[in-house]
Amino acid sequence: MANSNMKTLHSLEGIGKIQFEGKQSKNPLAFKSYNPSEVIGGKTMKDHLRFSVAYWHTLTADGTDMFGTGTMQRAWDSYSGMDLAKARLEVAFQLFDLLDVPYFSFHDRDIAPEGDTLQETNQHLDIILERMKEYMRDSGVKLLWNTANMFKHPRFVHGAATSCHADVFAYAAAQVKKGIETAKELRAENYVFWGGREGYDTLLNTDMKRELDHMASFLHMAVDYAKEIGYTGQFLIEPKPKEPTTHQYDADAATSIAFLKQYGLDTHFKLNIEANHATLAGHTFEHELRVARIHGLLGSVDANQGNTLLGWDTDEFPTDLYATTLAMYEILQNGGLGTGGLNFDAKVRRASFELEDILYAHIAGMDAFAKGLRVAHRLIEDRVFEDVIKHRYRSFSEGIGRDISEGKANFHILEEYALKHPLIRNESGREEQLKARLNQYLLED
Amino acid sequence: MANSNMKTLHSLEGIGKIQFEGKQSKNPLAFKSYNPSEVIGGKTMKDHLRFSVAYWHTLTADGTDMFGTGTMQRAWDSYSGMDLAKARLEVAFQLFDLLDVPYFSFHDRDIAPEGDTLQETNQHLDIILERMKEYMRDSGVKLLWNTANMFKHPRFVHGAATSCHADVFAYAAAQVKKGIETAKELRAENYVFWGGREGYDTLLNTDMKRELDHMASFLHMAVDYAKEIGYTGQFLIEPKPKEPTTHQYDADAATSIAFLKQYGLDTHFKLNIEANHATLAGHTFEHELRVARIHGLLGSVDANQGNTLLGWDTDEFPTDLYATTLAMYEILQNGGLGTGGLNFDAKVRRASFELEDILYAHIAGMDAFAKGLRVAHRLIEDRVFEDVIKHRYRSFSEGIGRDISEGKANFHILEEYALKHPLIRNESGREEQLKARLNQYLLED
Amino acid sequence: MANSNMKTLHSLEGIGKIQFEGKQSKNPLAFKSYNPSEVIGGKTMKDHLRFSVAYWHTLTADGTDMFGTGTMQRAWDSYSGMDLAKARLEVAFQLFDLLDVPYFSFHDRDIAPEGDTLQETNQHLDIILERMKEYMRDSGVKLLWNTANMFKHPRFVHGAATSCHADVFAYAAAQVKKGIETAKELRAENYVFWGGREGYDTLLNTDMKRELDHMASFLHMAVDYAKEIGYTGQFLIEPKPKEPTTHQYDADAATSIAFLKQYGLDTHFKLNIEANHATLAGHTFEHELRVARIHGLLGSVDANQGNTLLGWDTDEFPTDLYATTLAMYEILQNGGLGTGGLNFDAKVRRASFELEDILYAHIAGMDAFAKGLRVAHRLIEDRVFEDVIKHRYRSFSEGIGRDISEGKANFHILEEYALKHPLIRNESGREEQLKARLNQYLLED
Amino acid sequence: MANSNMKTLHSLEGIGKIQFEGKQSKNPLAFKSYNPSEVIGGKTMKDHLRFSVAYWHTLTADGTDMFGTGTMQRAWDSYSGMDLAKARLEVAFQLFDLLDVPYFSFHDRDIAPEGDTLQETNQHLDIILERMKEYMRDSGVKLLWNTANMFKHPRFVHGAATSCHADVFAYAAAQVKKGIETAKELRAENYVFWGGREGYDTLLNTDMKRELDHMASFLHMAVDYAKEIGYTGQFLIEPKPKEPTTHQYDADAATSIAFLKQYGLDTHFKLNIEANHATLAGHTFEHELRVARIHGLLGSVDANQGNTLLGWDTDEFPTDLYATTLAMYEILQNGGLGTGGLNFDAKVRRASFELEDILYAHIAGMDAFAKGLRVAHRLIEDRVFEDVIKHRYRSFSEGIGRDISEGKANFHILEEYALKHPLIRNESGREEQLKARLNQYLLED
Repeated sequence: MANSNMKTLHSLEGIGKIQFEGKQSKNPLAFKSYNPSEVIGGKTMKDHLRFSVAYWHTLTADGTDMFGTGTMQRAWDSYSGMDLAKARLEVAFQLFDLLDVPYFSFHDRDIAPEGDTLQETNQHLDIILERMKEYMRDSGVKLLWNTANMFKHPRFVHGAATSCHADVFAYAAAQVKKGIETAKELRAENYVFWGGREGYDTLLNTDMKRELDHMASFLHMAVDYAKEIGYTGQFLIEPKPKEPTTHQYDADAATSIAFLKQYGLDTHFKLNIEANHATLAGHTFEHELRVARIHGLLGSVDANQGNTLLGWDTDEFPTDLYATTLAMYEILQNGGLGTGGLNFDAKVRRASFELEDILYAHIAGMDAFAKGLRVAHRLIEDRVFEDVIKHRYRSFSEGIGRDISEGKANFHILEEYALKHPLIRNESGREEQLKARLNQYLLED
Repeated sequence: MANSNMKTLHSLEGIGKIQFEGKQSKNPLAFKSYNPSEVIGGKTMKDHLRFSVAYWHTLTADGTDMFGTGTMQRAWDSYSGMDLAKARLEVAFQLFDLLDVPYFSFHDRDIAPEGDTLQETNQHLDIILERMKEYMRDSGVKLLWNTANMFKHPRFVHGAATSCHADVFAYAAAQVKKGIETAKELRAENYVFWGGREGYDTLLNTDMKRELDHMASFLHMAVDYAKEIGYTGQFLIEPKPKEPTTHQYDADAATSIAFLKQYGLDTHFKLNIEANHATLAGHTFEHELRVARIHGLLGSVDANQGNTLLGWDTDEFPTDLYATTLAMYEILQNGGLGTGGLNFDAKVRRASFELEDILYAHIAGMDAFAKGLRVAHRLIEDRVFEDVIKHRYRSFSEGIGRDISEGKANFHILEEYALKHPLIRNESGREEQLKARLNQYLLED
Repeated sequence: MANSNMKTLHSLEGIGKIQFEGKQSKNPLAFKSYNPSEVIGGKTMKDHLRFSVAYWHTLTADGTDMFGTGTMQRAWDSYSGMDLAKARLEVAFQLFDLLDVPYFSFHDRDIAPEGDTLQETNQHLDIILERMKEYMRDSGVKLLWNTANMFKHPRFVHGAATSCHADVFAYAAAQVKKGIETAKELRAENYVFWGGREGYDTLLNTDMKRELDHMASFLHMAVDYAKEIGYTGQFLIEPKPKEPTTHQYDADAATSIAFLKQYGLDTHFKLNIEANHATLAGHTFEHELRVARIHGLLGSVDANQGNTLLGWDTDEFPTDLYATTLAMYEILQNGGLGTGGLNFDAKVRRASFELEDILYAHIAGMDAFAKGLRVAHRLIEDRVFEDVIKHRYRSFSEGIGRDISEGKANFHILEEYALKHPLIRNESGREEQLKARLNQYLLED
Repeated sequence: MANSNMKTLHSLEGIGKIQFEGKQSKNPLAFKSYNPSEVIGGKTMKDHLRFSVAYWHTLTADGTDMFGTGTMQRAWDSYSGMDLAKARLEVAFQLFDLLDVPYFSFHDRDIAPEGDTLQETNQHLDIILERMKEYMRDSGVKLLWNTANMFKHPRFVHGAATSCHADVFAYAAAQVKKGIETAKELRAENYVFWGGREGYDTLLNTDMKRELDHMASFLHMAVDYAKEIGYTGQFLIEPKPKEPTTHQYDADAATSIAFLKQYGLDTHFKLNIEANHATLAGHTFEHELRVARIHGLLGSVDANQGNTLLGWDTDEFPTDLYATTLAMYEILQNGGLGTGGLNFDAKVRRASFELEDILYAHIAGMDAFAKGLRVAHRLIEDRVFEDVIKHRYRSFSEGIGRDISEGKANFHILEEYALKHPLIRNESGREEQLKARLNQYLLED
C-alpha cells in the first residue's frame, strides 16, 4: 500500500512512532514503561508481550452504548461501505506503526461489510483480505487471530452453533469455514471461537443438552476442516459467563475445560482468557489464567479490565497494575503464551471520543503490562512467592506427606498416622505480609 | 428409645403430628400443600420429595452470626457435652415424627462433641451412633447422608484434603474413614463431600495444581475404602463458589464435573446441588440442576434459598414457588433423585428464635416443594414446555438438520447448503408467553 | 384519525380487544387475572392499576443490544423519518385499544425524529403532537407522563444538566422547556426527569459538587417555568444507580430524597420508582416503594423487572408475582398512586421479535399486577401483616415505650428504667411463618 | 501501669518499635513508606494520617468465621473474664507503642466483659477505664473514638434504637449514656454510632417509618445528653448497606445524609466512612468520601478494604494503593479529617493467626496509606486533576455558563441561547490518559 492520498490520521500528523521515554517523561504520547527492545529474562519486552490491537473496538466501533448513539470522531467517518472498510484498513496499519504493535486481531465483519448474500459478503472479505496481506507484508505486522462475528446479525438471535434452527447452524459453519481459510491465508497464529450468543436466555424454551452437543459437533467440524486444508494455527475458545445471553455456555475457564474434555476437544483447543470476563464470572483475572495454565490450556489473553462494581462487560483498557502484574506472573510461569498474545479487547470510553484517545489508551495499557512484566519477572527471579509456597507445602516432600503425594497412602495408613500424631501445628498463611511484599515490588522497580 | 423423661419439646406439648389440611387452612401448624400419601404420577408425594432434616441447622446451630451470639431458645440448652448430644438426638426424632420426614442428614461433629483426641471423638460418636440406630429402627426414619465437618476446627484453617500440611490430610482421611464406616453402619443412602475449606484465600501462597491433585487423591482413597468395606451408598460432592474461602475449588456444577472427569472420579460421584450455592455462583438453582442432570450426575439436593441481593450464604428455608417448581421440574425430568432427597440445608432466621419457628419453617419449605411438585407434574403432563421445545428444534429432525444431528454433515456440505438457502426465518422464543404460562400453572392448581 | 389505509397491525388482524377470560382460559390472547371493570375495595381494577404503555420500548425500540442489531419484525419498518413516526403513532393507539390501557408515556425523541436544528426538531414534534392529541381525544387514552431524552445524542456525552459544557445545559433547558409545554398541551398527569447521563464516569475529571448544583438549578428553572405557564402536573425524578454512567446521581430513592431536600425541591417533586433500578441499587422493589411512601414522595411506578443474577438493566416485563404483590401492597397502603400509574418500562426480549410478543408481554405484565392487586388487597383487608406489626411494636403504646414515642423520655429516664428492668424478653420475628402466609394468600385467591 | 510481669507479647520479644527503613528495606518488620516525622505539605505524616488501632479486631477477635471457630494464637488466651480484659489492655498499649500509632478505638464490650446486670457490666467497664486512662497518660496514645456494641447480645436481635421492643430501646439508651460518659472521661475525639442491627430483615414484619423515627429520637437524646454533660467530641454515624441485617438504615453516605437532614441532626453528626462498606453499597471508597466531603460531613475513616468479588464485609487490611491514594486525595482536599483519623477497622485473615501477623498487617496498611498520602499530595501540588477539571468546566465561568452558575438564567434565556448556538462542541473526558497519569504518579515517587 505504498502510496495513499488519504490522510485519515491527519489530526495526528506530526506525531511519530510512540517512543519509550521512561517513567519521568511528561510526554503523554510516550511510553513510560514499555521499552520494546529491552531484554528481560533473555527476551525482549516486545517478544514477551506480543501486543495486539483489536480491530473492532479501535477501528470499527463508534461509541454506541445501550443509551446512546456513537460519539467517536474519526477521520474515516465520511466514508461508507467498502470505501469505509478500506479507509479503516489504511488507518489501522498507520496506528499499528505508531504504536509499534506486532499483532492485530479481527472478526470477519469488522473488516468488511456484509453483502446481500453470503457470496457477496465473502467477496467483500476477499477484496479487503488481499489488501490486508499487502499491508501485513509491508509492515511486518502479523495476525494474532481472527474469528467470526456470529452474534450481531439477527439470524443469530438464538445462537449460531447452538441455534434451534439448523439453517443458522449451516450458515455459521459456512462463515467459520471462510474464517479458517482466512486464518490460513493470513497465517493467523490462532483462530478464536467466542460463543457470542452460544447460551440461553431462559431454560423454559431451551434443550441445553442438545445445544451443547451441537456446539461440540460444530467445533469438531472446524477441527476437521483445519486439518483438511492444513491450517495449523492454534484453536482457542473464550470463556464468558453472561451477556449477551443470560447464560453463556463457555461460562468460565473451568466450565470451558469441562466442555472440551467432555467432547474430546481438549487436544485441539486452548483458552483465550479475558480479564473482564473473569470478573463477570466472579473470578479474578489471575484465577482464570491459573486454571487454564495448570490444565496446560492457556492459549492467549484478551487484555482489558472491567469494573467490579458494574455488572456488564465494560472492556476498559487495562491500567490496574495489580492485575497486569499478576497476569504476567501467570504468563511467565506458563513459559509465555506460545502462539498467543496480549490482545487489547478494550475500547476507549464513550466520552474519550477524540482520535488521540486511542493512542493514550493503548499507551496506558501497554505501559501497564510492561510494568506488570517487570514486576512479575523480579518476583519470580527473587522467588518471592515460590519460596513461600515451597516452604508451605514442605510436609508433602517427606514421610507421610511424600507417601500421599506418591499415591502410596490409604485411609488405613493415614488413620494410623493421625492417631499417633494428635498434635497438628499449622503455620500462618501470611497473606498480609505477602501483599505488602507485592506492593514493595510494585513500587521498587 | 421407648421411654424418656426428658420433655425437650415441652413447649410444643399438645402439638401432634403436622397434618395436611389443604390450602384454605388457617392453622399455621398444618400443611397446606404437602399431603404425604397423595399420589402424583404414580408415586406418593412422600416418595417424590424424600424430605430430610439437616441436623446442624435445626438441632445444633444456635443463631450465631458474624455480629452476634446465639439467640435460639432451645429446651435442651441446659445440657452440655454428651448429655447435650443425647438430648438433641431425642428431640431430633420427636421433630422428625412431628414433621413426618423420612430422612435426616448430619456432619459427624453435629451429633457428638469432639474429644481431646481423635480416639475419644470417635468414642463419642460411637455412643451416639448406637442410640441413633435405635431411634432409626423405632421410627423408621432413615439417614439420607452423613458427612464430615472438616471446616470448623482450627486444624482445617488451610483446608482438609487441600491443606498445605500433610498431617491435616491424614487427619481428614481418618475422619472420613470413620464417616464412611458410619454411613455403612447406619445404611446412609449417600455420603457427601462438601469441601468446606477446600479452596484458597489468596493465590499468592497457593499451589492450586498440587491442592487439586491432593483433593483427587483423597477422593480416590475414599472410593477405595468404601469398596473395601462394602459401603455401596452414593458418593456426592457439593458445589459452592466461595465462603468460607475466597475461592472454593468445587465452585459450581460445571467446575465440579470438570474436576471429576479430570481425575477419573465421575463414575464414583454425583452432585449434591444447593440452591443458595447456585445463586452465589451466579446461576439459578434450575441451571445447576440442569447441568448436573444432563451429565447424568444429579444426585441429591440441598433445599434452601438465598437472597440474591445479599452476597453470602443465607441458607433460608425455601419458600419461593418459582424456584421450587423449576427445581421439581428438573427432578421429575431426571426420573427423581434416586438415592438422593430434598435436604433442608436451611436455618431459621436468627430472629426466629422460638422452637415453633422450626416447625413453621419446615412447613413453609415442605409446602413450597409440594406445590412445586404439583405444578411441575402438571407442566410435564401437559407438555407445556416440552412441546414448545420439540417444535423449536424441529429443523434438526429432518434434512440438513438431521444430518448435523447424526454427524453426517461437514463444513463443505453446510457451506453449500447455506449458499443455496440465503433466507433464514427464525421464530420468536416466546419468553414472555412462557412465563405467563408458568404463572398460570402456578395459580391454577 | 378516523380512516387509515395502513394496516400496520395486519398480522394481528382478527384479533379483537384482549378480554378477561379468567384463570382457566387457554387463550394466550386473553387476560387471566386482569378484569378492568372488576371492583376491588371500591375501585375498579383499571382505576387501581392505571396501566401505561411505554412508547420507547414498545413502539420505537428494535431489539438492538450491545452485541447485535435490531431483530424486531414490525409492520412499520418500511417507513422512515416522519412517515415512520406517523405509522408508529397509528399503531400505538391500535395497541392501546387492543390492550385497553388508559395511559401511555414517551420521551420526546421516541415520537418524532430529531431534525437538523432544534427548531426543526420541535417542528417535527409539533406535527406529531397535533395528531397525537386527536388520537387521544378519539380514544380517551391519556398521557401518564412525558420526558426528555437527554442521553442518546452525542451532545449529552458528559450529561445534560450536569454536563461540563454550558451549551449543553442550555440545550437541555430548551428541550425540557418544550417538554413541559408538551405536557401542558397534552394534559400529561406527570412530567418525568430521568437523569440518563446525569452522573459521572470517573471522579478523576469530575466536580461532583458543581454538577449537583447545576442539576438542582436546572430543576428549579423547570419548576419556575411550569408555574409560569400554568402546568400543574406532578414532577417526578427517577432513581437509578448506574448505567449508562458509572455512577448516576439519582442513585436510589433515599439518595434522590436527600438531593431534593438538600436543594429545597422536595415540595415540587415526587419519585418514579422502577423495579429494575431498585434491584440494580441492591434494594428490593418494595423497599424503594416503601422509602418513597414513608417520605410522602411516592409518585409513580415503572413496572418492569430485572434479573438479579445479571448486572444491567434488563427491563423485562413484570411477571414475578411476589414482586407485583408486594408492590401493590405498598401502593394500596399509599392510598394509590395519585396522578401516577404503572408504566410498563419494559421491552420484549430480543428473541421475542414477533408482533404478537408485544401483546403476550403486556398481558403477562397486566395479569401479574392484577393478581398482585388482588392478593395485596386481601392481605390488607385481613390485616395479615398489619396485625403482626401492631402487635410487635405494642410496647411503644404504653409505659416507657409511649414516653419514647411521645418524646418524653431522655437518657436519664431510660437508664433508670433499664437498670430496673434487667430481664428483656424478645419475641420471634416469625419471618418463615409470614412468608408461608404470603404464599398461602398468593395461591388461595 | 509501670510494672507488669505478664509477657503477653513475649513471642515478639526482641522486637523494638517498628522503624521507617525506606522502600528498599528487606525487613518485614519495618515501614517502607510510613515515616512518621516526615513533613509533607507542612504537616508530619503522623499528623496527616492519625492512625488508630481497632481494639475489637486486633485485641478481642479470635478468627471465628461463619464456618469455623477461632484460630488466633494469642499469648493472652490463657486468661478469662476481667483478667483477660486486663491482659488485652496491657498488650494493646505495647502494640500501640511498637507501631507508634497515636490513636485507638473501641466498642464498650471489646474492653470489658458483660456482667450479669447492666450495673455489673458498667462496673467492669469502670475498672478497665481507670486502667486505660493510666495507660493513655503514660503512653500519650489517645482515643480516636469509642462506641457501643449493640449488635452482639441476643437482646439486640431486632435492633437497638430500632428494636420493636421499648425495653431494648431503653437498654440501648443506658448503654450509650455510659458510652458518652466514657468518651468524655477519656477525652475521645469522637463518638461513633454504627447501627449494627438498625435495619430490617423483612418488610413483612417491619414498620420502617416508626423505626426511623425511633432512631432519630435516640440520636437527639444522645445529642442532648452530650450537651448536658459537656462532652464536645464529634458525633459520627457510619454507613453500611447490609449485614448483619438484610437492609441497614444507614445504607450509604447519601442515605445517611438524607436521614440526618430529615430529622434535623445534620449539625450534630458527621460521617465515619468505611472502605468495605462503600463497596458493599456498590460505591467506590472515594465516592463515599466525596459525597461526605461535599456536604461538609466527612468526619472520620474506617481504613480497611473489601473484596469486590465477595459479598460480605471482609474487613481486610488496606493494601490497595489506588484506594489509599484516592482516599488521601479526598482527605487532603477536605483539609484533613479534623478530629477524625484513619482507624484500622480491619482484621488479620483467619489464616494469619500468629501474633506477628498483627504487625505485618498494620505495617502493610500504614505503608499503603503513607504511600497514598505521598502520591495524593503530589497530585494536588501539581494540580494534575484540578487543572483538568478547571479546564473542563471553564464554560461556566463566562457568558451563558456564568449566568447559569450565578442563577441568572431561566428556560427562556437558555432556549434563546440554544437556538442561536446550534453547534455544540464537546471535548474528550480523557479518562484513559488520566488513569495513566495516576499510574505514573504512583510509580514515580
